[in-house]
Amino acid sequence: MSTYIAPLRDMRFAMTELADLGALASLPGFEEVSPELAEAVLEEASKLAAEVLAPLNRTGDETGARLAADGVIASDGFAQAYHQFAAGGWNGLSGDPAFGGQGLPELLQAATVEMWNSSNMAFALCPLLTAGATEALRQHGSDELKQRYLPKMIGGAWTATMNLTEPQAGSDLAAVRTKAVPEGDHYRLSGQKIFITWGDHDMTDNVVHLVLARTPDAPEGVRGISLFLVPKFLLNADGSLGAHNDVHCVSLEHKLGIHASPTCVMSFGDKDGAIGYLVGHENKGLAHMFTMMNEARQKVGIQGLAMAERAYQQAREYAKERVQGRAAGSRSAGAVAIIHHPDVRRMLLTMKSQIEAMRAFAYVMAADMDRSHRDADDAARARAQARVDLLIPVLKGWCTELGVELASLGVQVHGGMGYIEETGACQFLRDARIATIYEGTTGIQAADLVGRKLASDGGAALFELVAQMRGVALELERSTDAQLASIGSAFAASVQALEDATRWLLRALTTDVDAALASSVEYLMMLGYVCGGWQMARAALVAARKLAADEDPEFHRTKLATARFYTEKILPKAHAFKETILHGASGAFDISNEQF
Amino acid sequence: MSTYIAPLRDMRFAMTELADLGALASLPGFEEVSPELAEAVLEEASKLAAEVLAPLNRTGDETGARLAADGVIASDGFAQAYHQFAAGGWNGLSGDPAFGGQGLPELLQAATVEMWNSSNMAFALCPLLTAGATEALRQHGSDELKQRYLPKMIGGAWTATMNLTEPQAGSDLAAVRTKAVPEGDHYRLSGQKIFITWGDHDMTDNVVHLVLARTPDAPEGVRGISLFLVPKFLLNADGSLGAHNDVHCVSLEHKLGIHASPTCVMSFGDKDGAIGYLVGHENKGLAHMFTMMNEARQKVGIQGLAMAERAYQQAREYAKERVQGRAAGSRSAGAVAIIHHPDVRRMLLTMKSQIEAMRAFAYVMAADMDRSHRDADDAARARAQARVDLLIPVLKGWCTELGVELASLGVQVHGGMGYIEETGACQFLRDARIATIYEGTTGIQAADLVGRKLASDGGAALFELVAQMRGVALELERSTDAQLASIGSAFAASVQALEDATRWLLRALTTDVDAALASSVEYLMMLGYVCGGWQMARAALVAARKLAADEDPEFHRTKLATARFYTEKILPKAHAFKETILHGASGAFDISNEQF
Repeated sequence: MSTYIAPLRDMRFAMTELADLGALASLPGFEEVSPELAEAVLEEASKLAAEVLAPLNRTGDETGARLAADGVIASDGFAQAYHQFAAGGWNGLSGDPAFGGQGLPELLQAATVEMWNSSNMAFALCPLLTAGATEALRQHGSDELKQRYLPKMIGGAWTATMNLTEPQAGSDLAAVRTKAVPEGDHYRLSGQKIFITWGDHDMTDNVVHLVLARTPDAPEGVRGISLFLVPKFLLNADGSLGAHNDVHCVSLEHKLGIHASPTCVMSFGDKDGAIGYLVGHENKGLAHMFTMMNEARQKVGIQGLAMAERAYQQAREYAKERVQGRAAGSRSAGAVAIIHHPDVRRMLLTMKSQIEAMRAFAYVMAADMDRSHRDADDAARARAQARVDLLIPVLKGWCTELGVELASLGVQVHGGMGYIEETGACQFLRDARIATIYEGTTGIQAADLVGRKLASDGGAALFELVAQMRGVALELERSTDAQLASIGSAFAASVQALEDATRWLLRALTTDVDAALASSVEYLMMLGYVCGGWQMARAALVAARKLAADEDPEFHRTKLATARFYTEKILPKAHAFKETILHGASGAFDISNEQF
Repeated sequence: MSTYIAPLRDMRFAMTELADLGALASLPGFEEVSPELAEAVLEEASKLAAEVLAPLNRTGDETGARLAADGVIASDGFAQAYHQFAAGGWNGLSGDPAFGGQGLPELLQAATVEMWNSSNMAFALCPLLTAGATEALRQHGSDELKQRYLPKMIGGAWTATMNLTEPQAGSDLAAVRTKAVPEGDHYRLSGQKIFITWGDHDMTDNVVHLVLARTPDAPEGVRGISLFLVPKFLLNADGSLGAHNDVHCVSLEHKLGIHASPTCVMSFGDKDGAIGYLVGHENKGLAHMFTMMNEARQKVGIQGLAMAERAYQQAREYAKERVQGRAAGSRSAGAVAIIHHPDVRRMLLTMKSQIEAMRAFAYVMAADMDRSHRDADDAARARAQARVDLLIPVLKGWCTELGVELASLGVQVHGGMGYIEETGACQFLRDARIATIYEGTTGIQAADLVGRKLASDGGAALFELVAQMRGVALELERSTDAQLASIGSAFAASVQALEDATRWLLRALTTDVDAALASSVEYLMMLGYVCGGWQMARAALVAARKLAADEDPEFHRTKLATARFYTEKILPKAHAFKETILHGASGAFDISNEQF
C-alpha cells in the first residue's frame, strides 16, 4: 500500500491563488494570518497526517473499534494518535480564542481537514463531529455551559457527538421521540439514538453528546424539538468529572467501511434518565442543530475530496510501478509501466482533474465562510453567507458522489490487485461510500438546494454566482492564447446550460414540484461540475500568468493541461444534465408502485 | 434482506418480443424450442435460484470459502446446492448433446445465467468458468480428450477453471512463464497461476484446469503460448479417478466481495511437474483461450445485469416499506413510504430502466450467438458472428460498469441502513465491483472494441448496426403518438452522435492511436447506452402495439414509461460522450509522469 503524502503544492495553489489567502489577513481577527503561518500549519499537519494517522488507517480497518463491558475501545494506536492530535492544538485550529481556540481561518482548517481524512477518515470523523457540536454550543449555549464545556471540547480533552437519528427518524427529524423531562436546572432524557458516530470510546475521559429530544408539552413535528447537552460523565461544581450519566453505547454497527469509527446505538435513560442541559431555546433545537449540520456537511464534502485524493495517490503509485503490456502504437516489444497506457492516463487524469476542481471549490468556499463570519462590512458578510448557504449542499453532495466514483476508479486502475483487500484500494471505496449518505443523503442535499436555497431567494444567489462565472469565461474567451480561449468557450457553454436549467427549475418549483425534485440531484451534480469548471477556469488564467512570468513552469503547465482536460473531458456532462433536468420526472409518476 | 424473485415477466418480454425466441425454432437443432419449453425452463430455474441459491448468498459472504490442509472447502451448503444444480442439468443447458448436453439456445442459457448470478454470484462463477472451459475443449480438444472429459464437465460432475494470470502477467499474456515440457503423450507443467476462480473446492471429486503455458522451444510473446488440460486427479484408462496430479491451491485471496468464490493461487509442478494434455495446437493457446474468454465475457456482462437486478429488488422492497417524511407538495402531515419521494423514484427508475435495457441487449445478443452457431445460411451465420464479435466487449464493459453504478445506487436508496452489512445492500456492491475487472478490464474491452473490432473491418459491422438502429428510430419518429415520436427523435439523435464518434475514432486510429485509445472507454460506454436505447426503442414499439390490442396493459404502459425515462433521463449521456470522445486524449499526454 502506498503512503499518504499531503499534496502541499496544489493545496498552496488553491489557497493562495484561488481562495485568496492573502486577502483574509485584512479581516478582523486574522491580522496575523500570513503565507508563512499558513505554510507552517500545512507542513506540521502534513507530518502528523503522514507519520501518525496514515499508518493506523489499514490496521484500524482490519481490527475496528469494539464494544467491551464498560464501553467502546478504539482501535489499537488510536488513543495515542488522538492525544498527539489534541496536544498539537489541531482540534481548536479555527476555534474561538475566548475558549482556547487558535482562531485561524476556516480556509486553513479546510486544508487540515482534507489531510486528516485522506490519511485516516475513520479517525478524522471524531474531531469532525466534535467541531460541529462545538460550533452549535458556541452559538446557542448559555455562558455557563460554554464555560464548562467549550474549553475541553476545543482543546480536544473531550470529544463530542451529534445525536439526531432514531430508528423511525432518519432524514425525517419530525419523527424524533426521545423524551426530555424538566427537573430543576436540568432535564432527564430517555430514548434510543442510532448511527451515532464516535458515540463512545476510550480516547478521552469524557464524551459530550448533543441530543435532539422533545419536552413533555412540545408541539408535534419539527417545531417541538429541543437540543440538549448530555455529558457521558457529569461534572462536579469545580468542573472535575463526577458520576457516569445514564447514557451508554449498547451496540456497534457492522459497516461496509470506516471500521475504526464506532457507529453506536446509544441508549439514554435506561435507569433514572440521562441528565441533560438545554442548549438555546426549547423547541428551537432543529435550528440550533442546523448550525452543526452545516459545519459537518462542509467537512463531509471535504471527505469526498480527501478520499478521492487518497485513492488517486494509491492508483498513481501503482500505475508508475506496475509494468504490463507495450505502449500503444509502439513497435518496441518492451513492456512499460501502465501509466503510459492511454486509458490508464485517462483514468488518472479523470481523478486528478476533478480532485483539483473539488479542492479549489472547497477552499474557496472555506474562505467565503471566513468572510461570512468576519467581514467588517455587513453587506459583504451577508453576501458571503448567501454564497455559503447556496453551495454547502453542492459541496457535500457533489464532492461525496465524486469521492465514491473516483475511489472506485482508483480500484479499477489496479486491475485484479485492486480487488484484493491487502492492496488497500478497496478500503478507500468502502470508506468513501458512507459520505453520500450521512449528514443528509445526496437527495436531501439536492432537496435543500432546490426546494429551499433556490426557492428562498428566487435564484438570486445563484444568478450572482452565474454572473461571476461569466466574467471568468469572458476573460478566457478574449485571450489570444488558443488553449485559454477554448477553455473559456467550453466553460461559458456550461454556464449557459446551468442558467437554462436553473430557470426551468425555478418555474417547475411553482408549477410541478415533483418534476423539480425529481431533477434536483441532477441539478446539484450539474452545479458541482460547473463550479469545478469555474475554479479550473480561474486556475487556467492564473497558470497562464505564472507561465508568462516563468514561475514554476512545470507545475503551471500541468495545471493548464489539467484544466483543459477538465473542460474537455469532464465538463461536457453539464449538457447532458441540462437535457435530463428539463425532462423533469419523465415517466416516473406514470408508473404505479406495484409496477416497479 | 429481501428475497430474490426472478423477473420472469420482463425476461419473457425480452426473450419473446425483442430476441425473437420464436424464430430460433427454425434453426437446425432447435426444432423443439417452443414458448412452452422456454417457460418451463424459466420457471424451474427461477425456483432453484430463489429457493436454493439465494438463501446461501449472505452466509456465503459471511463465511467464505476456506483453505484446509487438503484443499479448499466451499462455504456451508454450497456443495449440496451444487449437486442440485448439476442434477437439474443446468450446467449443460446449452451444452453439446453429443456429450450429454441439452443443446438448448444460448438465449435460454442467458436468462438462467442472469438468475444464478442475481441469486448468488459467488456460486454462479463456478459453472460460468466451467462453461468457458467446456467450449474451448469442445472446439479445440482432441476426440480422446473430449470423450474423457466433456461428459463430466457438461453433466456437472466436474467443474473447470481458466488458468491465465501469473503475478507478472495480468492483462498481458505475452508475459506468461509457466513451463510445459513434453513427456510421451503428455506434458509436465510447472509454474504458478494467480486469481484462479474456483481453482479448488470440495463440491465435486475432480477439477479440470485449462492452463496457458510455454513449451521449451516456444517463441517469445503471445505466439509461444499453448493450452493444456490439467486435471486435479488423473484419470485411469477406464476413466475412473487416479492419483492426485501435481497441482495444488496454495493460498486464497482476501477480497472485497464474492467471498464464497475461492480465488486461488495455484501451484503447478511443485514435485515432478503436473501432468497436462495439449488442447489444440502448440503455440496456438491464446487463440484457443479466446474461445473461453468470449464465452466468459458474455456471461460476466450478464453478471453486471444480474447484480443490478438483485440490488434493484432489494432497494425497491426497502423503498416500499420504509416510511419516512411527507410527500413533496403534499399538505398532509402523514409520513409516506419513501417510494413516493421524487428522488427515490428517480433512483429506482434509473435502475429499472437501465436493467431492462441491459437485459434486452444481453438477450438479443444471446440470440445472435445462437444464429452465429446454427443458422443454415453461411452469410447469416457470418453476419451474426460479426455482430457478436463487435458487441461482446460492449456487453462485458457497459453492463459491468452499470452493475457497479446501480448496485451503489441501491445502497443509496437505503440511506444509512444501506451501509450496514446486515441489510445486504453493500454485498451486491462489493460483489459487483469485480466484474469490471476480471475477464479483461473495461479498458481492455474498450481497446478490443476500438483497436481490434472497429479497426478490423473499418467499422462495417458498426455501421450495419447503425443502419438497423436508424430503421427503428424512423418507425418511431413517423408515429402519430407523441410519446413514441419523442422517444424516436431522442434515440435518433443518439444514433447520430454514435455515428459521428465512430467516424472520428476510425480516423484517429490511423492518425493518433493514443487519442483513439484514450477515448475508447468513453466510446464503449456510449455504444452501450445507445444499444440500450435501441432495445428500449424497440420495446416501446412493441408495447404500443400490445396496448393497442389491449394486451396486459399495465405491464406495457409501464414499459412505455420506462422506455421514455431511459430515453429522456439516461440517453442524453450519449451527447456528452460524443463531445468527450472528440477531444481524444485532451491534455493527458502533455503531462509528464512526475507531474501526476
